[in-house]
Amino acid sequence: MAGTDSTKSFTPAPGPAVILVEPQLGENIGMAARAMLNCGLTELRLVSPRDGWPNEDAVSASAGADGVINNAAVFETTSGAVADLHRVFAATARPRDMTTLVITPTQAAAEIHAFMAEPENRTGILFGREAKGLKNDDIALSDAIIMAPVNPAFSSLNLAQAVFAVGHEWFKAGLADAEKTGGDLAIPKETRPADKAELQGLFEHLEDELKISGFFHVPEKRTVMSRNLRNLLQRAGLTEQEVRTLRGVISSLVTHRKK
Amino acid sequence: MAGTDSTKSFTPAPGPAVILVEPQLGENIGMAARAMLNCGLTELRLVSPRDGWPNEDAVSASAGADGVINNAAVFETTSGAVADLHRVFAATARPRDMTTLVITPTQAAAEIHAFMAEPENRTGILFGREAKGLKNDDIALSDAIIMAPVNPAFSSLNLAQAVFAVGHEWFKAGLADAEKTGGDLAIPKETRPADKAELQGLFEHLEDELKISGFFHVPEKRTVMSRNLRNLLQRAGLTEQEVRTLRGVISSLVTHRKK
Repeated sequence: MAGTDSTKSFTPAPGPAVILVEPQLGENIGMAARAMLNCGLTELRLVSPRDGWPNEDAVSASAGADGVINNAAVFETTSGAVADLHRVFAATARPRDMTTLVITPTQAAAEIHAFMAEPENRTGILFGREAKGLKNDDIALSDAIIMAPVNPAFSSLNLAQAVFAVGHEWFKAGLADAEKTGGDLAIPKETRPADKAELQGLFEHLEDELKISGFFHVPEKRTVMSRNLRNLLQRAGLTEQEVRTLRGVISSLVTHRKK
Repeated sequence: MAGTDSTKSFTPAPGPAVILVEPQLGENIGMAARAMLNCGLTELRLVSPRDGWPNEDAVSASAGADGVINNAAVFETTSGAVADLHRVFAATARPRDMTTLVITPTQAAAEIHAFMAEPENRTGILFGREAKGLKNDDIALSDAIIMAPVNPAFSSLNLAQAVFAVGHEWFKAGLADAEKTGGDLAIPKETRPADKAELQGLFEHLEDELKISGFFHVPEKRTVMSRNLRNLLQRAGLTEQEVRTLRGVISSLVTHRKK
């Protein structure tokens, strides 16, 4: 497969192709493949990998994303790697001497999803060689530059990180509805949220025992103290099982006092 | 610096602390530090790094983020590493047997920005050891779990990638007008969120009294029952005043028993 344009030998995924231009270390290619698969991207293209291809370091660094590695297509030139694509993005810093559209990964994700709604539309994202990034000739093959907003004082992302920064936005944009839902209290299957009657039972149990123990020795404060306790227990979002546990705690704490 | 709680020796940054729990390879610590600095995060804490500290591999893999590495604070335990923090998040998969709030990095970013608008409020994010993630006892120290939405068929992120996935959302939320996702606790002016040392004091107080009262009569269940109690109290987002109230409740309930 090395050194030939083998794009026709595998089935394209519905996401954009990730195109690594002249990557150097196999380890970085592998970590990029892992980041791709984390984001549901499977189509990897390599332009003239420095250490040849296949590369064992890439397989081991992929941490199980070897399907992505094994299906990687290798090209001699960037123009060969993008020849069958309809829209190409370049993930890189902005070149000083070119007028280019610069968008964020979030904007690119929305654009790619919209564009690929037509099944025959194919897209790809170019990533440059480690440290040096893309050459202007590569960028000139692109429709827009993708720049992730990062700390301007320390903006150099490692290759896999750059792939993830873009790929993750693409993945999340496909999930949009789930992302919009609020925080989710994961409750183990065996239990369910307590209902208000169960909570009321807990509050009364606690307050009765506190009364007996003399906790409400300043009568005027009883209402506000009870309210504060109810409020903080309420906030915990207790399950039915937890209400029973807390009632057990109260009973246990006072047990010996009754003996 | 290794093996001691050196958190007082450096100036905290305005972002959350990144806490790596028992990280194994220095290279991964370095790549995590690079990802942090890409996202403008500078406060690194390490809990029992396997290969000791300092670690030359960490410096070289940080690709210039050696300021982060050199200022890292090392702790023996996770509870030591979070003791001065007011809100702690755990970046991990959802545990099967705990009732825990699960939020996305985007939601966590909004929450952290809102919470840290009060300058004295300090937060941190726990990341687990490579491959194994966080233990349930670490998660029990946290207020919520952060799970990045990724490919469910290939969800294991490398350590630096996980740091980036969370850190980048925090960075971006600081750029845009962070959309407040609600769920933020309005805390009366006279009090402040309890820090983790205060919570730890509450947990130990409760557990000591429960032990005396025979609540843990099935010894094998003690760990899981303690964890469940800590977890539900943690979820309430207690203030320092409320911790004192609850300790008063415990003392009152057991008072008569001691007579």
